[in-house]
Amino acid sequence: MAADIKPIGIFDSGVGGLTVAKEIMAVLPHQPLVYFGDCINAPYGNRTDDELLGFSQRIINFLLEKDVGAIVVACGTISTRIFAELGQFVPGHIPLYEMLTAGVQAVTEASKTGKIGVIATEGSVKSGAFEREILKARPDAMVKSVACPLLVPLVEEGWAGGEVADLVAKEYLKDLAESDVDTLLLGCTHYPLLSDSIAKSLPNATLINPANHVAENLRNCVNYASASPEKPKHQFYTTAKKEKFDKIAKNILPAFDKPSILV
Amino acid sequence: MAADIKPIGIFDSGVGGLTVAKEIMAVLPHQPLVYFGDCINAPYGNRTDDELLGFSQRIINFLLEKDVGAIVVACGTISTRIFAELGQFVPGHIPLYEMLTAGVQAVTEASKTGKIGVIATEGSVKSGAFEREILKARPDAMVKSVACPLLVPLVEEGWAGGEVADLVAKEYLKDLAESDVDTLLLGCTHYPLLSDSIAKSLPNATLINPANHVAENLRNCVNYASASPEKPKHQFYTTAKKEKFDKIAKNILPAFDKPSILV
Repeated sequence: MAADIKPIGIFDSGVGGLTVAKEIMAVLPHQPLVYFGDCINAPYGNRTDDELLGFSQRIINFLLEKDVGAIVVACGTISTRIFAELGQFVPGHIPLYEMLTAGVQAVTEASKTGKIGVIATEGSVKSGAFEREILKARPDAMVKSVACPLLVPLVEEGWAGGEVADLVAKEYLKDLAESDVDTLLLGCTHYPLLSDSIAKSLPNATLINPANHVAENLRNCVNYASASPEKPKHQFYTTAKKEKFDKIAKNILPAFDKPSILV
Repeated sequence: MAADIKPIGIFDSGVGGLTVAKEIMAVLPHQPLVYFGDCINAPYGNRTDDELLGFSQRIINFLLEKDVGAIVVACGTISTRIFAELGQFVPGHIPLYEMLTAGVQAVTEASKTGKIGVIATEGSVKSGAFEREILKARPDAMVKSVACPLLVPLVEEGWAGGEVADLVAKEYLKDLAESDVDTLLLGCTHYPLLSDSIAKSLPNATLINPANHVAENLRNCVNYASASPEKPKHQFYTTAKKEKFDKIAKNILPAFDKPSILV
C-alpha cells in the first residue's frame, strides 16, 4: 500500500453502518476500512446532544489514532442533530462525510415527479431535517416522511428477508404507496437490508441508499488504493455485543473474515 | 380519604408499567396511584448500573415527595440488576415491590408439570435471574427462556392485537410450543398487552402476569382506600414524549382521564 493511502474510518452507534461499509467496499474494493460500532451506547436516539458530542469525540480520536484519511459518520442521529459541530474534532485535511447530505442530493436528482418518500427512525423524522434539506434542494418537491421504529430492531433480530419483515414493511409503507411517490430515501443505515421487503410494498418507487453516493464521493475525493493482489486489511471495533456484531457483520459483508475487536 | 391512606407509587422506564397500574387499579379500585415513566432515559437496557441507580434514586425521591405509602418498581431491568440496592433510598416503613419475585412465585405455584417458559427482554434473559429464582423456588423445574427484543417496540408502536403481533409472537414462541410448557411467565410489563397473540401461539399454557400478584400483595400489606363515591385521583408523570405516553395510557387504562404531567 502506498504511503499516502490511508484507511477510511466509519462509525455508527451499532451495526447499521456496516451497510455503508459494504457500499464503500464495492466502490473501492482495495481500500482498507476501520469500522467502529458503539454498541454499548446504542441506540443514540435517546441520548442528549452533549452525550452524542462526547461519544463522537472519543470515537473520532480513536479513528484518528488509527491514522484514517477520511471519516464517514454512518449514524443518522448524529447527521441530523450534531453533525455541524463535529468539525472541531477533526483536522481540516481529513474530509468528513455523512448520510443526510448524500441522500438528499441523490433523491432529489433521481425523482422525476418530485413526489419523494422518506423512511427513517422516529428521531430523524421528528427533526425535520430530511424534509428541510430536500425542499432546499428542490422547492417543488412533495415530501412524505414515515417514522419506522420497528425496522431497526427487526434487522438487529436477524429477521430481514422474512415473512415478518414483509408484513411490517407493508404496514409502514401503506401511506407512501397511496401517495404514489416515485423515489424513496432509505434514511437509516439498517434499511438497505430490508430492500427486498420494501420493494415488494412499493414496486413503482426507486429506492435510494445514501451509502452508494457517499462511496462515489469518496472515490472522487480521497487517495484510494488501486488494484493489488493482496486483500485489504479491514479492522472492526465494537464497544459491546461482539458475538452479535460478528454474526450480523458476516451476513452483511462477504469480506468480513476476521472477528471484531472489543474496545 | 382517611389520613393514613397514601397513594401507591409506581415507576418504570416508560409506558410498560401502565399494565401494572391497570392490575393494581383492578384489585384496589379506590386507591390513588402516582405513576412515573422515565421516557427520556428509556430503554434502561443499555444503561450502566450506576446510571440505573441514579435514575432510581431521583424517581424514588420524587415519589416520596408525593407522599406515597408503597413503591412498585415496574421495570424488569431494575428488578434483575439493581433491586437489592434500592432499599437504601427508601425509608424502612415504605414497602418496595418488584415484578421478578412476584412472577417467580406465581409461575412456580401455577405450573403442574414443572415445564415453565419465560419471555423477557434480552437483558433480563441474559441476566439469568428468572431461571435462577425459579429453580430456587422449584428445583425440579425445566425452565426455557426466550428473549423477545421486538415485542417492546411493537407495543410502543401501537401494534398490539394486529396481524404483525400475531406473526411475531408465533415466531418467538415456536420453541416454547415444541417444549410443551404448561405455564408462561410474562417477564416484561409490555407483554400483557400482547396476551391475545401469545395465547394463540401457545394455547395450552397458562399465562402469568406478575402484576396480578403484586396487586394482591399490595392488598394484603398496605392500608388501602375502600369504597368511596369519588373516583381516586391518579397522577401520571413522564420525563418525555408526553403525547405518546397519553395515547398509550388511554389505550391501557380506562381510568386515564387526565393528561400526564411532563417533569
